[in-house]
Amino acid sequence: MLSDEERLQSRAVREGDYVLLYIDNRRKRLVKIREGAVINSDKGVVKHDDIIGREWGEPVTLSTGAKAYILKPTFYDLLMNLPKRVTQVIYPKDIALMIMLSGIGYGSKVLEGGVGTGFLTAALAYSVGPEGHVYCYEIRKEFADVAKRNLKLLGLSDRVTIKIGDVRKDVTETGLDAAFLDIPDPWNALNSLSETLKPSAPVLIFVPTVNQVIKVVRALEEHKIGVDIHIYESMLREYQPKSEALRPHTLMIGHTGYIVFFRLVKRS
Amino acid sequence: MLSDEERLQSRAVREGDYVLLYIDNRRKRLVKIREGAVINSDKGVVKHDDIIGREWGEPVTLSTGAKAYILKPTFYDLLMNLPKRVTQVIYPKDIALMIMLSGIGYGSKVLEGGVGTGFLTAALAYSVGPEGHVYCYEIRKEFADVAKRNLKLLGLSDRVTIKIGDVRKDVTETGLDAAFLDIPDPWNALNSLSETLKPSAPVLIFVPTVNQVIKVVRALEEHKIGVDIHIYESMLREYQPKSEALRPHTLMIGHTGYIVFFRLVKRS
Amino acid sequence: MLSDEERLQSRAVREGDYVLLYIDNRRKRLVKIREGAVINSDKGVVKHDDIIGREWGEPVTLSTGAKAYILKPTFYDLLMNLPKRVTQVIYPKDIALMIMLSGIGYGSKVLEGGVGTGFLTAALAYSVGPEGHVYCYEIRKEFADVAKRNLKLLGLSDRVTIKIGDVRKDVTETGLDAAFLDIPDPWNALNSLSETLKPSAPVLIFVPTVNQVIKVVRALEEHKIGVDIHIYESMLREYQPKSEALRPHTLMIGHTGYIVFFRLVKRS
Amino acid sequence: MLSDEERLQSRAVREGDYVLLYIDNRRKRLVKIREGAVINSDKGVVKHDDIIGREWGEPVTLSTGAKAYILKPTFYDLLMNLPKRVTQVIYPKDIALMIMLSGIGYGSKVLEGGVGTGFLTAALAYSVGPEGHVYCYEIRKEFADVAKRNLKLLGLSDRVTIKIGDVRKDVTETGLDAAFLDIPDPWNALNSLSETLKPSAPVLIFVPTVNQVIKVVRALEEHKIGVDIHIYESMLREYQPKSEALRPHTLMIGHTGYIVFFRLVKRS
Repeated sequence: MLSDEERLQSRAVREGDYVLLYIDNRRKRLVKIREGAVINSDKGVVKHDDIIGREWGEPVTLSTGAKAYILKPTFYDLLMNLPKRVTQVIYPKDIALMIMLSGIGYGSKVLEGGVGTGFLTAALAYSVGPEGHVYCYEIRKEFADVAKRNLKLLGLSDRVTIKIGDVRKDVTETGLDAAFLDIPDPWNALNSLSETLKPSAPVLIFVPTVNQVIKVVRALEEHKIGVDIHIYESMLREYQPKSEALRPHTLMIGHTGYIVFFRLVKRS
Repeated sequence: MLSDEERLQSRAVREGDYVLLYIDNRRKRLVKIREGAVINSDKGVVKHDDIIGREWGEPVTLSTGAKAYILKPTFYDLLMNLPKRVTQVIYPKDIALMIMLSGIGYGSKVLEGGVGTGFLTAALAYSVGPEGHVYCYEIRKEFADVAKRNLKLLGLSDRVTIKIGDVRKDVTETGLDAAFLDIPDPWNALNSLSETLKPSAPVLIFVPTVNQVIKVVRALEEHKIGVDIHIYESMLREYQPKSEALRPHTLMIGHTGYIVFFRLVKRS
Repeated sequence: MLSDEERLQSRAVREGDYVLLYIDNRRKRLVKIREGAVINSDKGVVKHDDIIGREWGEPVTLSTGAKAYILKPTFYDLLMNLPKRVTQVIYPKDIALMIMLSGIGYGSKVLEGGVGTGFLTAALAYSVGPEGHVYCYEIRKEFADVAKRNLKLLGLSDRVTIKIGDVRKDVTETGLDAAFLDIPDPWNALNSLSETLKPSAPVLIFVPTVNQVIKVVRALEEHKIGVDIHIYESMLREYQPKSEALRPHTLMIGHTGYIVFFRLVKRS
Repeated sequence: MLSDEERLQSRAVREGDYVLLYIDNRRKRLVKIREGAVINSDKGVVKHDDIIGREWGEPVTLSTGAKAYILKPTFYDLLMNLPKRVTQVIYPKDIALMIMLSGIGYGSKVLEGGVGTGFLTAALAYSVGPEGHVYCYEIRKEFADVAKRNLKLLGLSDRVTIKIGDVRKDVTETGLDAAFLDIPDPWNALNSLSETLKPSAPVLIFVPTVNQVIKVVRALEEHKIGVDIHIYESMLREYQPKSEALRPHTLMIGHTGYIVFFRLVKRS
């Protein structure tokens, strides 16, 4: 058996490695390499045995003659290819912005309300490093189970505690650095945050509709516990990578959701 | 003198702490608290002495009667308030997306070409944690000096090596996990990356014009060293936080730049 | 005196003509040519006498040596340079889309609620041609007066009737082809439209906030008098016209308002 | 037989009328009413005979019990439902903006290069009214034939002349008010425009890629025949019309093309 460290340093693919086989921008396959197995695609087939021993970044030829490349999966690749999704996941563009705005990093302890598929959870756990921790509350046990399995696959289980409970009233932690809420009614979770978070900690909320944004802002206006309130909407366009015909793709994701940011303050 | 740890745990503001004084969304002041000093604003004045001893998140009253809040700065606040900018900095929305796409995190070693003000450098250093490292090449010594000062202020100097040199030909490191290029002609830096990066490592490029995007894509088409090429443009809208009149701000930043992503592969 | 026809056909500028003097993209001056007058700008001065007799499209040299061009104003130029604005006007991008969606054209008779500066009114009047007509209701006499003056300047007075009254209850016309509402509470004007418009006519509403959109949609859900409901938001980016550095302008208008479209049907 | 006038004024649907049957936002059918015919949809069936004699705007019940509405088609409806498309058509959002920027209206004479399906042609012809005219050049006879058929369906044939020819060199008209170019290489058509258009006339170009925009701008920089150059990109978002869950649709058209506007001036 190889240690993780040996695996990381090796320039050649070995049995048990995860490989991202890149055929083209719409055909990327994340697979765990096992002797005797094959990767199928409508562009052709390749045997795992033909990948073992090859160097990362090398091309490999499919049965049809098409060329594919052996890429070493990054954390982003692993995250984007999690096997099981039980809910709509927050998009990477939104997660990245939420993490940046929150200021969390190595060693941060954060609260997450609504674990869903564990997608945001994983990104938070990755950001806070081995000295940080993510405390998640999820009322649906089946979601929590999926999230746990995904976090295990990503090697992040140690950094996360998932509790079956209601983030609006069951949180027992104190002194956390930031909160991330991805629940249908985040406005009902705001009042209890002051017992959980450090004073003046940032709170990040993700909601898909403007009605929910209005309710969050109204709750903040009423309870007077939030300042530095910002509402963001991130639109990501992608261009086709052709030097002679550069243009955005015709179709784009026009909406994912709204991000509400605020700093938790003492009611005055 | 307080240790960093004591400062972090303290609920009350002490001499020497950084404070983000929040007056309103357009008036935020990052200050280092010193006895006898004052914070001025067109909304009124407050003495540092009136802030010392107060708890984080508490309101404080300005000389005009207006209310302000004492916020503990996050890494994001510190980054956004770096005292000296010598170049146009990459926006947080773009930095966050680049870091997410790169998959870097705790322990990653990364290359940065073009250090500028050190803004992206700092965000990279923050992401890779104390076990990671950022190797920067910058041809203008005066920029390197500013970046070093900024990194010191942020407490990130240990994670960064800034070299006066040309990222297109002077890089001596090997086995790095990802590259970030923020130089005017990134297409000239691509060929030397294969000696610096691990095979199949991600490369992230930021350029402001479509002409530059075209040149990068053309270079990749010619050299055949990049796959999984993606070109992104992130547009961030902000809404005014009023529950009875929710609407985006009239003015927005309509353009910052384009992000080109690719995976470095063996020329075939 | 020249007839309008002679003026239109003439290739040379004459006394009394409107001229759009183009200096650069941020310096365009719409002036009525009068002997002895001068045009001032921070790029230099030019006498009207030096423009008289010149051909349209010709360059003219300012006192500083800078070059300007003599452009014959289009309807769009005249509209964008109306001398008096009493309200925030709807942007051309939104007006153009509303007119397109409404299907109005030569000969159409339309209702307008809220005349403001007369900007939308003028565009509607221009679209319906000499056989069409625009019936406007405006409760503020001072706004109606400004709009009338602007329409006169544009030569469109004959196609427009402006009444001091409340579009929510005072409309006396019947059999109109479409309605355009630019008032703060359009949801209160919907029920009376069935007496004014032809059956199944299109209705176009412009509102700046999402709260107003919600109220319009709620009213349509309750009254059940609208189908084919569409809500649009148009975002217009402009690029700097440099072939070697093509990129969008940094700043853009990120929000003007929302367009609600529906077809008026019989309550069922 | 009914005259067009009678048909326009009638409140009831008669044999031979065009009807837009609205089932829901994704199910709209434009049909010409004929006794004995039926309209099929996956939401149910309705006989034309059940529509004849009904008033515009009335509901009609499909075979499944679902409700549909009888809408009188506007010009926009007719345009969007043209039976035959041989090319990618320019989107209404772009056409509307181009027409607005051009300033054309009742009585204008315009040049169009590249007729395609006749979609833009029809919109131009509709805008210029019965006293205006559109001169089109199209090198592919089969496209010209389709466009002619579409214009006939829309009743706009009298306002349009379609010539089989090359807009880059075959144009014989003079004194036109504006030009609209929708061809792959518009930069090759610019030099001949000065013989066709009135001095200082507006020119509108539509191209899908940034490479084409660059070439147009470069040609203008070299030939020095254009001022007031503007490059636009219009992004249209649509929201789902639900008062309790207002949000943009997830998918949007992220790109159609770029609009280049300029005023034709004398080379100096």
